[in-house]
Amino acid sequence: MNNFTYFNPVKVVFGKGTINQLAELVPAGRKILVTYGGGSIKQNGVYDQVKNALKGRDWVEFGGIEPNPRYETLMKSVALCREEGIGFLLSVGGGSVLDGTKFIALAVNYAQGDPWDILAKQAPAELALPLGCVLTLPATGSEMNCFSVISRDSTQEKLAFSNPAVFPRFSILDPETTISLPVRQTMNGIADAFAHVMEQYMTFPCEAPLQDRQAEAILSTLIEYGPQVLQQPGNYQFRSNIMWAATQALNGIISCGVPQDWTTHMIGHELTAFYGLDHAQTLVVVMPAVWKHQKARKALKLSQYAERIWGTKGSDSAGQAIEKTEQFFRSLGMKTRLSEYGITAERFEQIGQRFASRGLKLGEHEAIGKTEVIEILDLCR
Amino acid sequence: MNNFTYFNPVKVVFGKGTINQLAELVPAGRKILVTYGGGSIKQNGVYDQVKNALKGRDWVEFGGIEPNPRYETLMKSVALCREEGIGFLLSVGGGSVLDGTKFIALAVNYAQGDPWDILAKQAPAELALPLGCVLTLPATGSEMNCFSVISRDSTQEKLAFSNPAVFPRFSILDPETTISLPVRQTMNGIADAFAHVMEQYMTFPCEAPLQDRQAEAILSTLIEYGPQVLQQPGNYQFRSNIMWAATQALNGIISCGVPQDWTTHMIGHELTAFYGLDHAQTLVVVMPAVWKHQKARKALKLSQYAERIWGTKGSDSAGQAIEKTEQFFRSLGMKTRLSEYGITAERFEQIGQRFASRGLKLGEHEAIGKTEVIEILDLCR
Repeated sequence: MNNFTYFNPVKVVFGKGTINQLAELVPAGRKILVTYGGGSIKQNGVYDQVKNALKGRDWVEFGGIEPNPRYETLMKSVALCREEGIGFLLSVGGGSVLDGTKFIALAVNYAQGDPWDILAKQAPAELALPLGCVLTLPATGSEMNCFSVISRDSTQEKLAFSNPAVFPRFSILDPETTISLPVRQTMNGIADAFAHVMEQYMTFPCEAPLQDRQAEAILSTLIEYGPQVLQQPGNYQFRSNIMWAATQALNGIISCGVPQDWTTHMIGHELTAFYGLDHAQTLVVVMPAVWKHQKARKALKLSQYAERIWGTKGSDSAGQAIEKTEQFFRSLGMKTRLSEYGITAERFEQIGQRFASRGLKLGEHEAIGKTEVIEILDLCR
Repeated sequence: MNNFTYFNPVKVVFGKGTINQLAELVPAGRKILVTYGGGSIKQNGVYDQVKNALKGRDWVEFGGIEPNPRYETLMKSVALCREEGIGFLLSVGGGSVLDGTKFIALAVNYAQGDPWDILAKQAPAELALPLGCVLTLPATGSEMNCFSVISRDSTQEKLAFSNPAVFPRFSILDPETTISLPVRQTMNGIADAFAHVMEQYMTFPCEAPLQDRQAEAILSTLIEYGPQVLQQPGNYQFRSNIMWAATQALNGIISCGVPQDWTTHMIGHELTAFYGLDHAQTLVVVMPAVWKHQKARKALKLSQYAERIWGTKGSDSAGQAIEKTEQFFRSLGMKTRLSEYGITAERFEQIGQRFASRGLKLGEHEAIGKTEVIEILDLCR
């Protein structure tokens, strides 16, 4: 394996009835901003649980953070933080609310220019408001990492940053809060977590057998519980296993000392930016196409995956692994082709050009440029 | 799975040539005490690497911390810390040096009475000197947890404590430092890590399939690389995988939300205290005996282990799993019976009595008391 540094100071509080621990987890003496999304937390009882736990505290709220959180919305929250003298951010919701809250945490203290530079120019930013999280949607892994992805309407961009200053101080994961999730969000979450594992696993062997098996452990869990949770959405244990698997998928452990890909995410972000597809919807479409395009380079890992996860051996086990993966996504009720969304090749050139103009080559070999992106998009049709 | 809290703020710096990062990792402006063991670090070049990295810093050293670090020795170091106004502890060596250093870190600030109470009475202690670690022996997992085990000559006791204040600020793991390890220490380390996984895995199913597979991932790695590293002790990749597996075995991830046993360790500690056996030597003898004694209670997990790790199915797969495990230990050149060490039943009653007098019942069902301990020891002969 390669040299690496691993650091993850997030305190995870997992299980039934844990939201009341907010009373001890949120530091005293600071004004709190509770951030949330479209308001589902007001229907499913989570908002009330948070309110009870914060009794006696000085807090205000900022709702309406969208899926693919928008810079324009978040800057309103930044203004509110400054007006109110906020000293702690509490994100209540899914990965989008949390990603948005991480951006707010940095942007509040960013005086060097437009906070969008944190994304567009990867500008250094060291001071963040401390933040915590109550997670209600297992998917992005944001609850146990320092990553964030933000979208901007005016430029149709969706960009990411990583900054240790925005590790949540704590994340409360109560699987009961996920029982009322709509099927689409549940399945999106499973697909998202699955894709996260794959970006760190489906590359080339690197003498890191433990990391491989840790990744396969998460894949097996998602494959086992994905269809089951569709059948029994109210099953607490199924929900628990999905939730913990999604967190483990992107907390840094399985990427220790191994190459990473992330082509699927990079192309997927463009599809969301241009067509408004859900994040997970893009991943499910793009990932099999990336593998088909990079089949020779990924052959050894595709075969290992085929054998260990699907029990498939033989001459084209790599091809069969791709096939099985598409079937798995379809078993979650998801579409695996752009044509199913009515998307044609019209803007493929423009998307490819974006990577060219950013000077980015994608993938574990940095071998995927404009031409290859367009070829991959063609394989998604 | 059960509710749990996971928190592990240790920064792990892993790989070749990483010891020079001490220069940035050790906080400036504090007087440093470098702790070490029997002096092997002066032969294998590690001491010189540390010295180079600490150039220009104010530091003193304390060598001679033993395997099964002794309270009597550590209290001398505590006195030195006070005399010298030490502000940071740097442990250079294996798990014993680090466990000892964790105790020093708490004992220096412990003014309420005899620091032995931290172990004997589990007395609360919140203030610790900050500490870091350069690990040279993969085994105990101490580099990424807040546990410590200390022995005391005068009372023939070996006791443990756990305290978040003693999480290392950082742990440097350079697998090259392990290449010169004697075979016995290498094999002890593999057996120790294997036993750590088992204490958290070999209990009863708890609807935690991810944790099970994460545990199995570590077991498979140790089983694959243990015999290989015996053949090629100089192979960096083999050493790397053993080192990372040992760390992962006891960093808290695989115990999230599942029952734990620790009977083997508790009985093993007594065998070390009474007979001076290496820690790992005791584990290898006691663990199969615990499983034989608790075979009915552990039947489901023994069968799962038999099938997934050894590919064994059938009517007595549990029995076969125990057999295979003993064979694995013997393939590492280790003894699996007390008689091989010339130990007889003479003091079994006294050992059993110790647990009775401490009011302790062992195991995931808290069903192992004095009588059962003696029965297990009988199965170790």
